[in-house]
Amino acid sequence: MTEKTTECESKDHIVFIGDKPFMNYVTGVVMQFTTQNAVTSTIKARGKFISKAVDIAEVAAKRFLEGQIEVSNISIDSEGFKNSEGKDVRVSTIEIVLKKL
Amino acid sequence: MTEKTTECESKDHIVFIGDKPFMNYVTGVVMQFTTQNAVTSTIKARGKFISKAVDIAEVAAKRFLEGQIEVSNISIDSEGFKNSEGKDVRVSTIEIVLKKL
Repeated sequence: MTEKTTECESKDHIVFIGDKPFMNYVTGVVMQFTTQNAVTSTIKARGKFISKAVDIAEVAAKRFLEGQIEVSNISIDSEGFKNSEGKDVRVSTIEIVLKKL
Repeated sequence: MTEKTTECESKDHIVFIGDKPFMNYVTGVVMQFTTQNAVTSTIKARGKFISKAVDIAEVAAKRFLEGQIEVSNISIDSEGFKNSEGKDVRVSTIEIVLKKL
């Protein structure tokens, strides 16, 4: 059980962006740094939520935690899968890593 | 007039993503590499067009020019401005740099 704190400090600070209200995600990211001792926090999103992920990263880094965190890495990729009709579909993904300054 | 080719090869290969059809932009990016000798091409977008920009970069790099270009850099930022009602508005931006392999 004492492992828990260590685990929290090391990684697993990931936020997946979906259709919940915008500020839920901003608060989630900010709290990882302020109350969970996160060194980095990774914002992940797919498809239409990519724009929202960028907004969340910007608001967290420039408004709520200005001078305390910064964008350390951004990567994009795409995943292929079969949709419900068996058709091949491709969706883009983004990962934005924020880190403590 | 002979400067023109040099200018083309150096930079200014930028594509701004807006509400035109998706494939217009993919074709634009692909043609910069195939017919305009571009070494890099930068895809820029703001707000809701950010997701579309990522899709365009992925389709250009993974489907049309696979093994020929790659994503070399991605940066995000935000711009503040006053809207038509004089209210302060903030919009996120993205720049995706593709480069020839």
